[in-house]
Amino acid sequence: MSEEEKSEKIPESEGGEEEIKNRGNPEKSTEDLDLASVYVSDAQYNRNICVDTSPRAVKLYLLYNHWFLKVLLYFFILLDLSLAVFEEPAVLPVPSWATMLVELLCLLVFTARLAHYAKVIPRDKFWKDAKNICIIVVLMLTLVDMIIYGALRAADCSALRWSRVLRPLLLVNVTEGRQLRRAFRSIRNALPQIFYVFLLFMFSVLIFSLMALKLLGKRGLKTIDGSPYFTNYLEIVFDLYVLVTTANSPDIMMPAYNSSFVFAIFFIVYILINTYIFMSVFLAVVYNNYKKHLKEEMRQLVRAKRHKMVRAFGVLQEPRGEGLEPGVTQANWNQVVRLVRPDMSNAHRELLWSVSDNKNQGFIGKVAFVQLADLLNIEVITLKSRPHPLYRLCPTLYLSGPSRLLCRLVQHRAFVILFDLIILVNAVFIGLDEDNPMIANSEWVFLALYLLEILLKLYVFEPRAFFSRHNFWNWFDTIIVVSALIATVINSAMKSSGGYTSRQILDIVFVLRVLRLIRVVDSIQRFRTIINTMIRIGPAILTFGQLILVVYYVFAMVGMELFKDKVKFSEDPDDPEKLFCGNPRLRGTAFAHLNYCKNNFNNVVSSFILLVELTVVNHGFAIVTHASARIFFVLFHILVVIVIINIFVAFVLEAFFVEYSLEKSDLHTSLEKKISELELAVEQEKLQENLVNAMETIDNDLGTGQSAASNKPTLMFKIASKRYRTVDALLQRMFEADLDPDDFAENDDAQDDGNFTNPSFSSV
Amino acid sequence: MSEEEKSEKIPESEGGEEEIKNRGNPEKSTEDLDLASVYVSDAQYNRNICVDTSPRAVKLYLLYNHWFLKVLLYFFILLDLSLAVFEEPAVLPVPSWATMLVELLCLLVFTARLAHYAKVIPRDKFWKDAKNICIIVVLMLTLVDMIIYGALRAADCSALRWSRVLRPLLLVNVTEGRQLRRAFRSIRNALPQIFYVFLLFMFSVLIFSLMALKLLGKRGLKTIDGSPYFTNYLEIVFDLYVLVTTANSPDIMMPAYNSSFVFAIFFIVYILINTYIFMSVFLAVVYNNYKKHLKEEMRQLVRAKRHKMVRAFGVLQEPRGEGLEPGVTQANWNQVVRLVRPDMSNAHRELLWSVSDNKNQGFIGKVAFVQLADLLNIEVITLKSRPHPLYRLCPTLYLSGPSRLLCRLVQHRAFVILFDLIILVNAVFIGLDEDNPMIANSEWVFLALYLLEILLKLYVFEPRAFFSRHNFWNWFDTIIVVSALIATVINSAMKSSGGYTSRQILDIVFVLRVLRLIRVVDSIQRFRTIINTMIRIGPAILTFGQLILVVYYVFAMVGMELFKDKVKFSEDPDDPEKLFCGNPRLRGTAFAHLNYCKNNFNNVVSSFILLVELTVVNHGFAIVTHASARIFFVLFHILVVIVIINIFVAFVLEAFFVEYSLEKSDLHTSLEKKISELELAVEQEKLQENLVNAMETIDNDLGTGQSAASNKPTLMFKIASKRYRTVDALLQRMFEADLDPDDFAENDDAQDDGNFTNPSFSSV
Repeated sequence: MSEEEKSEKIPESEGGEEEIKNRGNPEKSTEDLDLASVYVSDAQYNRNICVDTSPRAVKLYLLYNHWFLKVLLYFFILLDLSLAVFEEPAVLPVPSWATMLVELLCLLVFTARLAHYAKVIPRDKFWKDAKNICIIVVLMLTLVDMIIYGALRAADCSALRWSRVLRPLLLVNVTEGRQLRRAFRSIRNALPQIFYVFLLFMFSVLIFSLMALKLLGKRGLKTIDGSPYFTNYLEIVFDLYVLVTTANSPDIMMPAYNSSFVFAIFFIVYILINTYIFMSVFLAVVYNNYKKHLKEEMRQLVRAKRHKMVRAFGVLQEPRGEGLEPGVTQANWNQVVRLVRPDMSNAHRELLWSVSDNKNQGFIGKVAFVQLADLLNIEVITLKSRPHPLYRLCPTLYLSGPSRLLCRLVQHRAFVILFDLIILVNAVFIGLDEDNPMIANSEWVFLALYLLEILLKLYVFEPRAFFSRHNFWNWFDTIIVVSALIATVINSAMKSSGGYTSRQILDIVFVLRVLRLIRVVDSIQRFRTIINTMIRIGPAILTFGQLILVVYYVFAMVGMELFKDKVKFSEDPDDPEKLFCGNPRLRGTAFAHLNYCKNNFNNVVSSFILLVELTVVNHGFAIVTHASARIFFVLFHILVVIVIINIFVAFVLEAFFVEYSLEKSDLHTSLEKKISELELAVEQEKLQENLVNAMETIDNDLGTGQSAASNKPTLMFKIASKRYRTVDALLQRMFEADLDPDDFAENDDAQDDGNFTNPSFSSV
Repeated sequence: MSEEEKSEKIPESEGGEEEIKNRGNPEKSTEDLDLASVYVSDAQYNRNICVDTSPRAVKLYLLYNHWFLKVLLYFFILLDLSLAVFEEPAVLPVPSWATMLVELLCLLVFTARLAHYAKVIPRDKFWKDAKNICIIVVLMLTLVDMIIYGALRAADCSALRWSRVLRPLLLVNVTEGRQLRRAFRSIRNALPQIFYVFLLFMFSVLIFSLMALKLLGKRGLKTIDGSPYFTNYLEIVFDLYVLVTTANSPDIMMPAYNSSFVFAIFFIVYILINTYIFMSVFLAVVYNNYKKHLKEEMRQLVRAKRHKMVRAFGVLQEPRGEGLEPGVTQANWNQVVRLVRPDMSNAHRELLWSVSDNKNQGFIGKVAFVQLADLLNIEVITLKSRPHPLYRLCPTLYLSGPSRLLCRLVQHRAFVILFDLIILVNAVFIGLDEDNPMIANSEWVFLALYLLEILLKLYVFEPRAFFSRHNFWNWFDTIIVVSALIATVINSAMKSSGGYTSRQILDIVFVLRVLRLIRVVDSIQRFRTIINTMIRIGPAILTFGQLILVVYYVFAMVGMELFKDKVKFSEDPDDPEKLFCGNPRLRGTAFAHLNYCKNNFNNVVSSFILLVELTVVNHGFAIVTHASARIFFVLFHILVVIVIINIFVAFVLEAFFVEYSLEKSDLHTSLEKKISELELAVEQEKLQENLVNAMETIDNDLGTGQSAASNKPTLMFKIASKRYRTVDALLQRMFEADLDPDDFAENDDAQDDGNFTNPSFSSV
C-alpha cells in the first residue's frame, strides 16, 4: 500500500504548461473553466487525483465525480457485500446461479468504473497506483473463484467461495474510500508500537498463568461444572486472557477464592496490571500514534490543497499591466464557483467574493484565490426575507389583533415549556398500561396536541424557513408526528374493522411514540452542546462503521466456513436437541444452559450479531470445535477491541477536546467580520432568546412583517460555525492549531520556484 | 473544603520582619538557618504550611516533619482503619473492649499530632483551616460513638458503630494527605460537567428502557429462569444500566434475540450509544477537566514554591556593598542544604553550588537561589570511584590473566544472552510437572546457576556500586535468588526429615521461581522504556490506591451494615445450605448456581474483594434484600468506574504522553552542562554498551583498575533524568510545557512589592 500512499500524498507539479499558455486571454474558454473548477473542487474535497489536463479527460472526470455515478458504485458494492445473505449458508436461500449472475453484474460495474478512472488519469499514474492494482486483482480472483465454484458445483463436488473474503477490499480501494484508507493507515502506523506493548502484556499474562498453574493447579480444586481447575497451562493462559476482557469475572476466581481469600489477591493484582494499566497503556499508545500520524497527514493534505489551488489560479490568471501581479477577474471566478457549487445562491457567492476581494478591485491575487477552497468549506446559512404566505393571501386578517396575539404567544418561552411538560406527561402515559382504554385514547389527545404545535408554528413562521435544511428538530418533529399519526390511524382502522392488530405496525407506533420524547433534550442548553458535539462526530463515526464492516465481514466469512452448523438453534420449543443446541458436545455446558444457541455462525446475520457480542464481551467459546479455534476469537479481540475500539475512543476524545479548546479559525473570523461589515449579520442576542430553534425568531422577524423590520435587509447570513461539510475539514480543524504555517511556506516555495508566497489568512 | 483549599493555595506574605532584621549579619544564627531550611524544604516538597517564624515554632516544625513521626502517624491511621478486621462483623473476632482500647490509643495519637501542628502554625491560621476542623469533628464524633456503643453494649442492646465510616477522612485530612486532597479536588471539579453528561446518559437509558418495555414487554417472552422478560419498567432500567457495564451481555439480549433477530438491532444501537459513545464522552470530560484543573493547581504550586524560596533568601541574604544586590554566601548556602538534605554527599552539594554560582563569585543572587528547590528535586547519581575489595586484598591475583579474562567474559554481551536463555529454559522446566524427580532436581541446578551469576558479577563489579540504590534489577535478582535458596532449603529439609511438605513454603518457592523470570524483560530495550514509564507512574498510582481505599472503606462499612449475613458461605461441602448460600431466597438463582456465596459483605475482607469485583463487572445482585439495594450498586458504579477509573486512565494517558513528547527541562540541561563542563560526566555511549545495567560498566571501569582509567576523576555524576523524587515534581513536569513563566512574573511582582524578578532558568 506504500505506493498508493505516495500517490495520494505527493502532489504533482504538472499543469505548468497551462499556466503559461493561458496568460493574456481576457475571457477564459469553457475548457479552462472546467479545468479550474476541477482543481478547486479537488482542493475543496481534498481529492488527490492527478487528472489528465486534456479537455476530454477533464470532461470525463467531471462525469466521474457526478454524484449519481458515486451512489451507483456504492449501491453495487453494498449489493456485492449483501450477496452473503443469499449465498450458502443463506439467510434467504436463492439458487446459486442467481447470486452468481448478480455478482457478475457487480464485477462488470466495478470494471466499468475502473476503466472510466483509467481514462481520466495518465496511464503511467494508473498503473503505479496500488489501489487500482488491488481492485484488478480482486476482480480477477473473484472471477477465477466463481468459475472454479461453478465447475465444482456442476460436478457435484463440495466447493468453497473463498473470494468472498476479498469483497470488503473493494470498499477500501475505490477512489471514494479515502477516509477508510486513512483509518487503515492510521492503524498500520500504530501497529509497531502496539506490538511491543502487546508482547509485554502477553509476557505478563504468561507469567501470571505460570504462577497460577504452580499455586492453584495442585490443590485439586474443581470448577462449577466439576472439571479440574487450573491444571492445563494453555487453558489457564486463555482463561486469564479472557479475564482481561472481564468476561469471566468473577467466575474464574471463585474456586480459588472459595479455597482461601489469599488467592483473591492474585486475581486483584492481575486485574490491576493487565486490565487497568495495560489497557490504558494500549489506549495511550494508540491515541498518541493516531494524533501524531493524523497531524502529518493533515499537513500533507493542506499542502496538496494549496498546490491544486495554485494550479487553478495558473489556469485562470490574467495579466494586469506592468508591475502588478496577475489576478483572476470576478467574471471568471464567478463561473468557476458556479461550476463547483451549482447550488450556491448568488448572494452567498457575492459574499465570498467580497471577502476575497476586500479592497474591491475586481481582481484577486494568488493569496486571496488560494483560500477559496477553505471558504467553500465554511457553511454559511443564507436567510431570505420572505413574507408569510398567509400575509400575502390576506394581510388584514394576518395582521389583526388576535392573530398578532397568537403569534406572540407561540413565540413566547412559555410555549416551549408548556410543550416540554406535555412531552413529560406523555412519557408517563406511555409507561402506563395501554390496555386501559383511558390511556389508549389519551394517545389521540397527545397526537392532536403535537399536530397543533406544528400547525401553530407553521402559522407563525414562514414555512420554507421552518423546513430549511438546518432546522433538524423541526424536520424531526414533523416526520415523527405525521408518521405516528398515519401508523396510529392504520392501526385503529385494522383493529376496528377485523379486530386484528398487526404486531409490526404496533411496534412502529410504539417506537415513534418514544422517539417523540427525545425532543425534550433540545430545550436544555447544556444538553444541546453535548448532543451537537456527538452529531458533529457522526460522519466520522460512519468511517469507523465502514472500518468495522470490513473487519466484521472478513471475520464473518472465515467464521462461517470454520464454525458453520456447529451450533443449531431450533424454533420448536419441544425439540429435544434444544437442550444442547443440536450438538452433543454442548450437553450440560453453560453455553447451552444460558440458551446461547442462537449465537452461531450459521448465516451472515447471526455471524454479525455474534461478532458484535464478541466485541462487547469475548468469551471465546471453543468447546464445539478444536481448542485452536480460540485463536480466531483472540485475534478478533486484539484487532477489534485493542486496536479499532481504542482508535475510536481516541477519535471521540480528540473531537471533544477540539470542542472544548479551539477558537474559530482566522478565515471564519474574516468571513464573519465581512458579514457584519455589510450589516447582513443575524444578531446573536436574537438567536439566544428563542429556545425552540435559533432560526425561527429570525425568520419570523423577517417574515411576518409584524416586527417593523422594514429597515432591515431582505437577506441575512449566518455562519454555521464549527460545522463542517466534510470529515476532512473537521480533521484539518482538529490539527489546525498545531500546524505551523511557515512549515509549508518553505516547502511550497521550493516546489513552486518561489512564485507562491504563503497565504497568511489573518491578513485578509 | 474551600477554606482548606485557600489556605493551601495562597501563600502568605509573612516573614518580612526577618528579611529586614537579618540584613547585615555576616554569619547567620542557627535559628535563621533553621528557618531558611524550613522554607527551602517546604518549597522542595511543595508543602503549603504557614509556619510560625518564631525559633521555637521552627524547631517544633522540624520535629513535626521528622520522618519517624510521619511513619508513626500513618501506622496509627492504618491501625485505626484495620480495626474493621477485628470488630463485629469480624474476620478475627476480638472482644470489643480490646478494639475500643486500641481505637482510643489511635485517637490519642491523632490528637497529639494535631496539638503539635497547632503549636507550629499561628493560632488564627489553625482555626481557619477546614482540614483541622474536620479532624477535630471526626475525633469528637468517634469518641461520642464509642461512648454510646459502649453504653448500649453494656445494656445488652444492639448497637451500631456508625463512626467507622468517618475513619478514612483522617487519611484525607492529615497534613501529609496533599496528593489525596488534590485528587478529591480534581474529582469535585469534574463533577458538574460529568453530571450533565450523566443526566443525558440516564435520559438515553430511560428512553431505551421505555422502548424496550413497549416493544418486548407484551410478547410473553421468558428469561432463562422462566420469569417474565422486560415487563417491569424499573427492572428494565436496571438491566439496561448493567448492560452498559457489559456484565449481563449477551444474557439480557438472548430472549429477545431468540424471538427475532430484528431485536438484536435494538441492543446493538443501545450498546453503541451508551457503552461506546457515552463512556468515551465520560472519559473525555473527566480527562479534559483533570488536565485543566491540574494545570491551574500546578501554576499555584510553582508560585507558592517561589515565594517560599524568596522568603528563605530574605532570611539568608547579606549586603554586598554599594550598587550590588544582596546575596547568599556559600557557607550559609552549604549549611542550609546540609540541614535540608543531610544525606547529600559533599561532592553533590558542591556540584549544585557550582551550577548556581556559575560565575564563581562566592555569592549567589535571588534568581540563582530560587532555583535551589528545583535543583534539589533533580536526582543526581553520584558515582564514586572505588577499587574492588579483592584488588585491595590481593592486587596481583586480581589483575592476573585468568582473572582479567573472567572479568571480560562477564562483561560481554554474550553473558547476558546466556543467562536470558537459561531463564527461558528455566521457564519451561517450571511449567513441567515437578513430581518428576529429574525436574525437581533441576531446580537446584538453576538456583546454582543464578547464584553463580550474582557471585561472578560481585567478583567483577565493586559490591557497593553493584548494590547502589538505583540498581533495581541487581537488588531484585539478589533478593529473589537468595530467598528462593532459603525457601528451597527449608522445604527440602522439612521433606527429608518428616516427609511433610508445608504448603505455604512451597507456595513461596513457586512464586519466587516465577518472579525470577521477570528479569528477562530488562534485556530488551523497547520493553525497558515501557516498564520505566509504568514504574515512574507508580507513586501516583499509590495516590489513586489511597483514593480507592477511602471510597472502598466507606462503601464496605455501609455495605456491611446493610447486607451483613444475607449470604452465607459454608466451608463444609456437605452443608445443605450451600446450595442456596444459606438464604432460601437464593434457591435456584444464578448467584447460588455459580457458587458466588463467598461474594458477601459478612466481613471487611470479603467486602473489599467484592467491591473489587464490582469495579470490574457490576452485576448488582439485589435478590436477597430489597430492590432498592441496587441504588448502592449503581452509586458505587458511578463513583468508582465512571469517575475514579476514568481519572486514573486520564492520569496514565497523560503520563505516557509526557514520556512521548517532553524534552528535558532547562534546569536539567544547565545541570548537565555543568557536569560535562567539569568533565565529571559519565559518557552516554558507555552506558548503552552494557545491557545488564547502565551503571555496572562504569563502576567496573572505575573500580577494577583494569581499564587504565587512572586519568579519570574519581568521582562522576549522572542525572537520573526524568526520574523525580516527588509526585508533585512529576505533575509539575507534566504541565511545565504549558505553564507560562511570564504569567507568574507579574503576579509575583505585584505581591512582592516588585523586589523579585522572575527567574529565567534558561539564562543560568
